[in-house]
Amino acid sequence: MTRLTLAIDAMGGDFGPCVTVPAALQALASHSELFLLLVGHPDTLTPLLAKADSSLTGRLQVIPAESVIASDARPAQAIRNSRGSSMRVALEMVKEGRAQACISAGNTGALMGLSTLLLKPLDGIKRPALMSVLPHQQQGKTVVLDLGANVNSDSAMLVQFAVMGSVMAEHVLGIPRPRVALLNIGHEETKGLETIRDAAVVLRESPQINYIGYLEGNELLTGKTDVMVCDGFVGNVTLKTMEGVVRMFLSLLKSSGEGKKRSWWLTLLGRLIQKRLAKRFGQLNPDQYNGACLLGLRGTVIKSHGAANQHAFAVAIEQAEQAVRQQIPERIAARLDAVLARSDKA
Amino acid sequence: MTRLTLAIDAMGGDFGPCVTVPAALQALASHSELFLLLVGHPDTLTPLLAKADSSLTGRLQVIPAESVIASDARPAQAIRNSRGSSMRVALEMVKEGRAQACISAGNTGALMGLSTLLLKPLDGIKRPALMSVLPHQQQGKTVVLDLGANVNSDSAMLVQFAVMGSVMAEHVLGIPRPRVALLNIGHEETKGLETIRDAAVVLRESPQINYIGYLEGNELLTGKTDVMVCDGFVGNVTLKTMEGVVRMFLSLLKSSGEGKKRSWWLTLLGRLIQKRLAKRFGQLNPDQYNGACLLGLRGTVIKSHGAANQHAFAVAIEQAEQAVRQQIPERIAARLDAVLARSDKA
Repeated sequence: MTRLTLAIDAMGGDFGPCVTVPAALQALASHSELFLLLVGHPDTLTPLLAKADSSLTGRLQVIPAESVIASDARPAQAIRNSRGSSMRVALEMVKEGRAQACISAGNTGALMGLSTLLLKPLDGIKRPALMSVLPHQQQGKTVVLDLGANVNSDSAMLVQFAVMGSVMAEHVLGIPRPRVALLNIGHEETKGLETIRDAAVVLRESPQINYIGYLEGNELLTGKTDVMVCDGFVGNVTLKTMEGVVRMFLSLLKSSGEGKKRSWWLTLLGRLIQKRLAKRFGQLNPDQYNGACLLGLRGTVIKSHGAANQHAFAVAIEQAEQAVRQQIPERIAARLDAVLARSDKA
Repeated sequence: MTRLTLAIDAMGGDFGPCVTVPAALQALASHSELFLLLVGHPDTLTPLLAKADSSLTGRLQVIPAESVIASDARPAQAIRNSRGSSMRVALEMVKEGRAQACISAGNTGALMGLSTLLLKPLDGIKRPALMSVLPHQQQGKTVVLDLGANVNSDSAMLVQFAVMGSVMAEHVLGIPRPRVALLNIGHEETKGLETIRDAAVVLRESPQINYIGYLEGNELLTGKTDVMVCDGFVGNVTLKTMEGVVRMFLSLLKSSGEGKKRSWWLTLLGRLIQKRLAKRFGQLNPDQYNGACLLGLRGTVIKSHGAANQHAFAVAIEQAEQAVRQQIPERIAARLDAVLARSDKA
């Protein structure tokens, strides 16, 4: 494979360099063709790299950035004062062509705003959307968006999310004529918010989109749709609710059987069975699919969970690598013109 | 215990009398002080009761209703044409004092509208809210509302939900100074929708409410709050998402280990362990806590899941029984005046 350079906002996220640096080294160890630009305070980053293998640090460069955008900063204000921040410098690496994608676990609103400002949306896209690919019960995958980039999405935006999600499912997941559904609180046409009902009218009349109607929250993981569209507020709450339940199950599974005195063979057997269950459930472990892709831009930006641990952040770096190899922005741009033109007419 | 009469909309829900009638008989068998009014088509209901034990049917009366409100009907239109429908007649039983509560698995919007029209909201309540009590990881319970009665909730409504939820947690769950949180997409004050941020300002300054701030979807089951407040759209999607994940886990748990040839003792042991896990997970099984209470009315109305099975509908009947015994409307009314007056001032 050809060389690939990614820029990492090393200061972003709840744990900053304590997570991003080891995750970067982990990613370099797994992918020999990978080069990483670690953006942040050199004084903080350099000591963390001191003991790393030179075969890894040879493919890594620290790019100085003097400030950090706080997780709780107001996005508008953060963007105004963003010059020299690790997030902005990382995005500038992509803008200047020095990196092919950027990964950040920092302030979502600021990342969304700065990415739009620096990398620009694709023609026909009002606002980019955060997209994740979730595993479902039928062994396949579902594209879900928006996961929090737009807390207020109007019907035109929902239609654009549907188009981007559909392109993603078809060209990246390889699903022909992917099914597209809107997340709602009932299946009946009369249900839910006006923005959703208006988007449904447009999608129903769009021959380019295989629109299948409304689905409810409990159908997210059933594999009934290939693309699930919702506004950013609902998407974020839904994804996090799902994560919370999965984490609770995994921890119950782990703790189950602990603290009881049993014969060694019974304990061993119990663990074996629990391991098998954990493996099946584990495919839904949020750490396994960390990293939402900001779709609709002229470049690749991956948003990691703010609370990501080393493993999860390494998964986000891999997501960026795959998104670049799959040429997601280029593929969306290529299809978007035709699809949106027809949706507009409909 | 004293005699208690409940009215059941026997025609509502996805399965109508096929579920409501056996569930009613099940509830009568478990509660000797219970009397039920089954509201619906006598021609449909009577044959289903033919083989039932007379000790049960003696505490049951069929109340004729000629029509049924469809699940997919537009609420406004359904309410206009509701005269003589099973849902409306069941609510009229409560209004006329012939029953102490009503249970329906029918159209949520119509139930909400008709309940408000017939039973009237309490003083100071703009719109009633659907509330459920969910088990959490710390062995306690969390009051969650609104779960779908109001798809658009303004900040004043969110504050009222907080007050009602708080009264419910204190007086029914017995939690002194219950913690109240708003469901949002981040903990920071700047996050989320304007309605939520405005409600936060009021709640923060209300000495009657122990407001603890924003919580995210993944914190719903952690026991970090006693009351979780959200608008009806988000609450409905969140609850259903949670249900979907729990059902998936329970089905994985059940199927795990099936179809493999193993020695009998290994199979037996596996089943034992799975049973233990299923028991722990099972407390989150949606069927175990079916039945959301419509809070803020001058009477008790329980909304069952439309897709409820017999067991789940019987649980909803029990919820109604408990709500009546706990005098929820009276308790809320008694506390509401003081609390809302102070919140308004704040």
